[in-house]
Amino acid sequence: MTHNYLGLDAGGTSTRAVVVSSDGRCGGIGKAGSGNPTSAGIDAATSAIRAAVTQAMASAGVDQVSGAALAVAGAGGAGHRATIAATLSDLVAHEPVFDFDVLAAYFSGTAAPDGYVLLSGTGASAVRVENGKLAAISDGLGWLLGDVGSGFWLGREAVRAGLAPLDGRGATTLLTGLLLDRLGTPPVTHREGGRTGTLVAATAALYAMPPLRLADFAALVFTAADAGDEFAAEILDRAAAGLAETLAAVRTPDVVGPLVAAGSVLARQPDFAARVAPGAVVADDGLAGAAVLALRHAGVLVDDDVYRRVTSSLAQLTEV
Amino acid sequence: MTHNYLGLDAGGTSTRAVVVSSDGRCGGIGKAGSGNPTSAGIDAATSAIRAAVTQAMASAGVDQVSGAALAVAGAGGAGHRATIAATLSDLVAHEPVFDFDVLAAYFSGTAAPDGYVLLSGTGASAVRVENGKLAAISDGLGWLLGDVGSGFWLGREAVRAGLAPLDGRGATTLLTGLLLDRLGTPPVTHREGGRTGTLVAATAALYAMPPLRLADFAALVFTAADAGDEFAAEILDRAAAGLAETLAAVRTPDVVGPLVAAGSVLARQPDFAARVAPGAVVADDGLAGAAVLALRHAGVLVDDDVYRRVTSSLAQLTEV
Repeated sequence: MTHNYLGLDAGGTSTRAVVVSSDGRCGGIGKAGSGNPTSAGIDAATSAIRAAVTQAMASAGVDQVSGAALAVAGAGGAGHRATIAATLSDLVAHEPVFDFDVLAAYFSGTAAPDGYVLLSGTGASAVRVENGKLAAISDGLGWLLGDVGSGFWLGREAVRAGLAPLDGRGATTLLTGLLLDRLGTPPVTHREGGRTGTLVAATAALYAMPPLRLADFAALVFTAADAGDEFAAEILDRAAAGLAETLAAVRTPDVVGPLVAAGSVLARQPDFAARVAPGAVVADDGLAGAAVLALRHAGVLVDDDVYRRVTSSLAQLTEV
Repeated sequence: MTHNYLGLDAGGTSTRAVVVSSDGRCGGIGKAGSGNPTSAGIDAATSAIRAAVTQAMASAGVDQVSGAALAVAGAGGAGHRATIAATLSDLVAHEPVFDFDVLAAYFSGTAAPDGYVLLSGTGASAVRVENGKLAAISDGLGWLLGDVGSGFWLGREAVRAGLAPLDGRGATTLLTGLLLDRLGTPPVTHREGGRTGTLVAATAALYAMPPLRLADFAALVFTAADAGDEFAAEILDRAAAGLAETLAAVRTPDVVGPLVAAGSVLARQPDFAARVAPGAVVADDGLAGAAVLALRHAGVLVDDDVYRRVTSSLAQLTEV
């Protein structure tokens, strides 16, 4: 007989759940808000996780699953696991297994138990996977201390470079106009405290956002570089060098498995992904990987046939 | 007859007040915590301002002053001025005048009504002063969006460069050992989630601080560079280039006045100050400038004699 399992990928932007049978067929998916306990808070994260799970199970037509793999940043952290597990206790027969969200990203690109994943989304990191487990990670130290080449890193560079010419610093760059357009800052002619009103309005709008939201401006760097802006091209050069260094830090000759490129920056910028991770499979969604983790933790061998069934059944579900 | 005036310099670290007579004699000083309404909150800032002022007036033996000049970041901001003025209403005969804290820094180095000041403390900016007023400012956009070459900027670079080798990225640098010593992170041998325990402990300690406190690590860059660390020297090169650009942005051939270097980074690192602001007068304290602002706003002509009286009487007060 086939059993049903639950895979969950709890990200900083959204939480996605999938019900997968032991032969690899995905029967239902669900989606809710941020399920990252660190950034969203444990109450909001727990609510989002339960909402995504109940939606996936209703869609699959099952009342209970045999087991669950929950891919959460930092594998949930010891303090949050019990709370998250408790919210799912009526839905999952066995205690859920927590795992690293970077592994869901990895297995969304390959079924191979050994290999590498380079991520650049809001954050950035590289991971070596051995025997299906996280063996080493580099960077991923967060927006303040690391995440070189991430969406936040690129967005911060875009914003700083875009603002500088407004008080006479830095090189002229297309980023200034793109930034002001994006902020919707109208040109302000009067000066305020020795600054142009435009600069005052733009900085006020930016400080009103949570710092992490600077990641929303990452796309401006690609837009400006595509239009021939040398300053933006130089930001991309530094991001690419940083990501290459991050990936090199987890490489070892003993592990020759595939390379997966994941995260919103790499998924949306295929040329940049090909530059920093040549030959990589690009995975734009952690849901397939969450299903694979659920099967692996249940002791199901995920061979190429099972993996194809996971990805093709998921594709049908997300097409609808 | 002589009148007494109050000068106040409300900074992010401390608030200092001085009572100055119309002939330039400083009769008493006071000191309290952060008086910056933006970073400390308006209630804490108001309490600190009142505490510093009452201490200075008690020390000078006066019950009321004729007027007051309050040097506050961004000149206090329209929303905070009424609250701050109200807390001093029994102590100051006339409505206090608010002015920019950068002007207190400028007048702590010179009495000239026209000139420039380059600041690098927790933040960084350059200001052109014309007729005793702020005519233009560059950078000073805060830790997230600007402040190139500031204490925060240097500290952030030191911390990121120091952490990187702990997961195999970046160049080997003395900053790693200096950072771990400063954090008091004991070497941790076990690995946690694919990272060394030392890196996990260091990042946890750093994220437990408010982001601005990364400024406390600025001194590590100078220590490492003095010991021959090339990576640290390169960070200082970039800081110096940024500060030079910030100063150049406010320079105009029409204003040929003196240059003042101010802020904790420039006051504590005379070689670095001489490099980024050649020929500058280094001012390590905004108190003399606050006294000058109080006199100027009261209509007192601050000539070289009065200025010398301000600085020499202040020196006697602070020596005690």
